[in-house]
Amino acid sequence: MFRYHQPVSFKHCDPAGIVFYPRYFEMINDCIETFFSAVAEWSFVEIHKDGAVPTAEIRTRFVKPSRLGDHLVLSLAVTHTGRTSLGLTIDCACGEETRFETEQTLVNIDAAGKPTPWPDEVKEKLQQFKERLDP
Amino acid sequence: MFRYHQPVSFKHCDPAGIVFYPRYFEMINDCIETFFSAVAEWSFVEIHKDGAVPTAEIRTRFVKPSRLGDHLVLSLAVTHTGRTSLGLTIDCACGEETRFETEQTLVNIDAAGKPTPWPDEVKEKLQQFKERLDP
Amino acid sequence: MFRYHQPVSFKHCDPAGIVFYPRYFEMINDCIETFFSAVAEWSFVEIHKDGAVPTAEIRTRFVKPSRLGDHLVLSLAVTHTGRTSLGLTIDCACGEETRFETEQTLVNIDAAGKPTPWPDEVKEKLQQFKERLDP
Amino acid sequence: MFRYHQPVSFKHCDPAGIVFYPRYFEMINDCIETFFSAVAEWSFVEIHKDGAVPTAEIRTRFVKPSRLGDHLVLSLAVTHTGRTSLGLTIDCACGEETRFETEQTLVNIDAAGKPTPWPDEVKEKLQQFKERLDP
Repeated sequence: MFRYHQPVSFKHCDPAGIVFYPRYFEMINDCIETFFSAVAEWSFVEIHKDGAVPTAEIRTRFVKPSRLGDHLVLSLAVTHTGRTSLGLTIDCACGEETRFETEQTLVNIDAAGKPTPWPDEVKEKLQQFKERLDP
Repeated sequence: MFRYHQPVSFKHCDPAGIVFYPRYFEMINDCIETFFSAVAEWSFVEIHKDGAVPTAEIRTRFVKPSRLGDHLVLSLAVTHTGRTSLGLTIDCACGEETRFETEQTLVNIDAAGKPTPWPDEVKEKLQQFKERLDP
Repeated sequence: MFRYHQPVSFKHCDPAGIVFYPRYFEMINDCIETFFSAVAEWSFVEIHKDGAVPTAEIRTRFVKPSRLGDHLVLSLAVTHTGRTSLGLTIDCACGEETRFETEQTLVNIDAAGKPTPWPDEVKEKLQQFKERLDP
Repeated sequence: MFRYHQPVSFKHCDPAGIVFYPRYFEMINDCIETFFSAVAEWSFVEIHKDGAVPTAEIRTRFVKPSRLGDHLVLSLAVTHTGRTSLGLTIDCACGEETRFETEQTLVNIDAAGKPTPWPDEVKEKLQQFKERLDP
């Protein structure tokens, strides 16, 4: 698992005192950005020189609310490495308690917005990461 | 259908020049906030005095990117009115082109965070709205 | 005065139930974006094709907090039209009550990030707007 | 100096590829939130139980743009400890290059929104921090 640590700060919280859920998607984006840099060794700086990795679909179940001061851990797993797509799940917990679970599909696109194959070395690293989790 | 108009402004867009998808969830939240006020006649000011209507689950398919200056229309339909929950869909288009489609479940909770039945007059208005669309 | 209407929505508010002040700067940006389009007839879509109008300095005094459901009006005045810069003030009120006051300097830059003179017709419209207020 | 590290991530950046300045105010807020917890030993969780520390005034000069992947360091200094107010400056740099400089006044308020004296032990820690920098 790739783990991303995210303390809940004031900016994340709404008048009900809990994380405003669009902010969770910023956390998810930060987690994926860090994952690409650390695991795929392909930083968002590199990626966005002539392409992007937009989200094609995302499904999220919010299990329990998170509050100011909570320490969240997002655990990312790769579920599918397609030719131009990537399937992943992120489970977010505070201690033992699940806060949200997400399934997401990303697509690698070129500068014109067309799906394009993952670079070989990126594909390989994503594949290796998947296999280490799921031998 | 309940329609919510949303021009794409600079603040929504990312370095790829397209809407950063967490911003779509802010638009979705604004759409639902306006819907509750206009259709259910129950404003977020009233709701948050001693409760909330958090999102329990959301599934979104991003079909085409949106760009600065686009005029988006979010069309909200009610698919299910439960005792304490509400199912809805939002389709977002720019002209004839779909940008994203979402299915979402909200839950009405009390000040302690427990699911609680919709107020009768709110339930009735949500039900009537659903039936007008789907006779 | 150029007036920009901004209802306070749930997304703007923090756990203290008032507008989180970084959100005010998003409102200020939206106000200026609309002003450029409506008054200078130079949209942010056009501007960002080969340049930008970043903020060089901003000073804001927060007078009273704003709450969910408040209807804010931002009133923009031009105080200075330089060769490459623009000075403006924005006063934000809810009814008769001032919420914040801001003084801001923008700079017109080219694609390389260098200050560059305003296009003549833009400068003229900014100047005319200033003179109508301050004859 | 109190130093707060902030990498520039994708969510901070605008279509011009640089940090959208309202995002800087989120960084400033995160920096101050961390400062209160680490230096004043008074966390935002504690503070917001029956009060808040809103910003009364802020003045920011944006010197150079920041880009995706930059590693920013915000350096906070206390300039004034009043009975109910706090003056501070934050300088933000990437390596040797200044990105922005801010001067800010915070006010300690109670649950009713009235300015209220800093708790003695908080005042003392803020004062000690100021004196260590400026003997």
